[in-house]
Amino acid sequence: MVQETPSNLGEFKVWTQQGQARRGQLTTAHGVIQTPVFMAVGTLATVKAMTPEELLEAGTQVVLGNTYHLHLRPGEKTIQKLGGLHKFMNWHGPILTDSGGFQVFSLAKLRKLTEEGVEFRSHINGAKLFLSPETSMQIQMDLGSDIIMAFDECLKHPATKEEIKKSMDLTYRWLLRSKAAMTRPESLLFGIVQGGLDIESRKYSLQQVTSVDLPGYALGGFSVGEPMELMYKIVDQIAPMMPAHKPRYLMGVGTPTDLIMSVDAGIDMFDCVMPTRVARNGTLFTWQGKVSIKRSEYKEDPSPLDPECDCYTCKNYSKAYLRHMFMSGEILGSRLNTIHNIHFYMTLMKRVRQSLEDGTWSEFKQFCLTRFSKKEAAS
Amino acid sequence: MVQETPSNLGEFKVWTQQGQARRGQLTTAHGVIQTPVFMAVGTLATVKAMTPEELLEAGTQVVLGNTYHLHLRPGEKTIQKLGGLHKFMNWHGPILTDSGGFQVFSLAKLRKLTEEGVEFRSHINGAKLFLSPETSMQIQMDLGSDIIMAFDECLKHPATKEEIKKSMDLTYRWLLRSKAAMTRPESLLFGIVQGGLDIESRKYSLQQVTSVDLPGYALGGFSVGEPMELMYKIVDQIAPMMPAHKPRYLMGVGTPTDLIMSVDAGIDMFDCVMPTRVARNGTLFTWQGKVSIKRSEYKEDPSPLDPECDCYTCKNYSKAYLRHMFMSGEILGSRLNTIHNIHFYMTLMKRVRQSLEDGTWSEFKQFCLTRFSKKEAAS
Repeated sequence: MVQETPSNLGEFKVWTQQGQARRGQLTTAHGVIQTPVFMAVGTLATVKAMTPEELLEAGTQVVLGNTYHLHLRPGEKTIQKLGGLHKFMNWHGPILTDSGGFQVFSLAKLRKLTEEGVEFRSHINGAKLFLSPETSMQIQMDLGSDIIMAFDECLKHPATKEEIKKSMDLTYRWLLRSKAAMTRPESLLFGIVQGGLDIESRKYSLQQVTSVDLPGYALGGFSVGEPMELMYKIVDQIAPMMPAHKPRYLMGVGTPTDLIMSVDAGIDMFDCVMPTRVARNGTLFTWQGKVSIKRSEYKEDPSPLDPECDCYTCKNYSKAYLRHMFMSGEILGSRLNTIHNIHFYMTLMKRVRQSLEDGTWSEFKQFCLTRFSKKEAAS
Repeated sequence: MVQETPSNLGEFKVWTQQGQARRGQLTTAHGVIQTPVFMAVGTLATVKAMTPEELLEAGTQVVLGNTYHLHLRPGEKTIQKLGGLHKFMNWHGPILTDSGGFQVFSLAKLRKLTEEGVEFRSHINGAKLFLSPETSMQIQMDLGSDIIMAFDECLKHPATKEEIKKSMDLTYRWLLRSKAAMTRPESLLFGIVQGGLDIESRKYSLQQVTSVDLPGYALGGFSVGEPMELMYKIVDQIAPMMPAHKPRYLMGVGTPTDLIMSVDAGIDMFDCVMPTRVARNGTLFTWQGKVSIKRSEYKEDPSPLDPECDCYTCKNYSKAYLRHMFMSGEILGSRLNTIHNIHFYMTLMKRVRQSLEDGTWSEFKQFCLTRFSKKEAAS
């Protein structure tokens, strides 16, 4: 599928705004993304348990690929030879790839950090590997990604102010190198604001990163175990300070409540493994709160998982069947649960966009918080 | 979905015959089955990794359920309360259930065999359980099965002539009890011919079992590790001696070559876990022979698994992608492989039926044996 690059590539239009919450759209080489958007995580060139058709059916607009994992296997050169990541995985909508930084700092072994980049050993076979702004950009360009993330350092929490500043300065120098190395005209490069959980550090990083003109900016380093109230507080302050005419992406977030709170702060883009990962573990998001499908109360329950949901799972199967699939360790259980959770997240974001169009965001936000907060807090 | 029971329930018509090979159809309470047919194994109320829609898309006509496994979990009374197995698993075509005999003798622990039945312990939690002709019939009736298998004893190979005779006589007495206990008018009861690998024992059992008037007869106890040539030899002799106007079902068989050889001997129905099980292990059946998708030669192979196949997998993915999914242990790999193998088996049987209709069975048989035999033997 050869697509012509749109003449307004990278354009981000904000259609309407209520408070800080924005309804917009971003033009990529593989299509226009309606925001606010939740992007499905497809680490190894597959959103686990789903086909691309099922993703589309659920309303998925963007799929994430993972630089670190795809570099390890099957290798970006292999994917490039096979026509790029879109063709390889049979997903022809927009693809965003992360830079590999987060995985290097969370998964890989024996890291050695220098100004040049990070030397590390593969978590699969121990092979010695090296990632730098230049190699990360090259990998993401080889994959044919539509949105490429700058290579940054991800600090562990907690970190001292001094460690944070040193890291932000390095991330800034790496951003300049990322921009110089990203030479693929069809791709959009996003910069990543770091700064941990300290508001002054966040402002410092924001200023550094937004001093580089880029088609989009992200907030990294959240959702790493901090109290959610603290994240909300920082995002509430930082998001509105991000460039108004560029998309704002909150990386690795989050629960349905997190999404609502962050849209309200002015965030446009999200990704998280949560809906797919917890689905495989039997935790399901519904409009009545979270459901743990293994509970014995569902053994003979003929009702659908969520009577307010029109996904394939809810239209065709009982809670009793979903429980049986889960208890038996059946692949179809993982499939049906994932279909539902992805559908739930995509429907939530569709309703977010609709309410912003209708001017009913504030009511919809309250409705969601009431519906979700109790059960989420309990589990 | 409430279906009216057809007035010609259980009718088996043979449309045409070439040599011993027959093209027929069997009427069940959930639809007419075109034979020869391969039935997909859905042990725990799911054909592993597949949705019912995908099964239909592949041309699946009948799904098997497993009495032993479903009795253990979630329990037939639970399934009955939820509206029966068809509704529970969202499969509205014909369902055949085995009697549980094979699993009791292969999976369960601490068996104690008496005239009355078999006492055993669950392989899941060690619970003490009992199966007899009467309980097996009751379970299958509770599930709402369209084709119910008689409860038989499955001997281990090798067995002495005396052991075989004792077992056949018990199986016969159990068949009479199965028939007396099977009181559900919508279900069809099939008897099972045993007799191991001894032709005289097979004839003895055949005479016993076919002395009971039933809508169908099966050959059990094959595909348990014996040389395939020996099975072909016995099936070649026994199948034509089975009642001509009743469907003949060869249980637990087999490879594509086994199916072709057995259709040629006059068999109408088959089931086997092979296409689904080996798919999950990366072995794929194609019109060019078997493929082990993990082989490194496929790492950068952009071609489809089988250029002669029009399944979803072959239309949308490369061998390189299938290999990557398999090597990464991704659920989508199991899905795509299973879709292909089931599609391959169903297409094979469709072409078998077509060739019988066209009068080209003998040519098609030769074509298949040439295509399949070499690679199957090699792997």
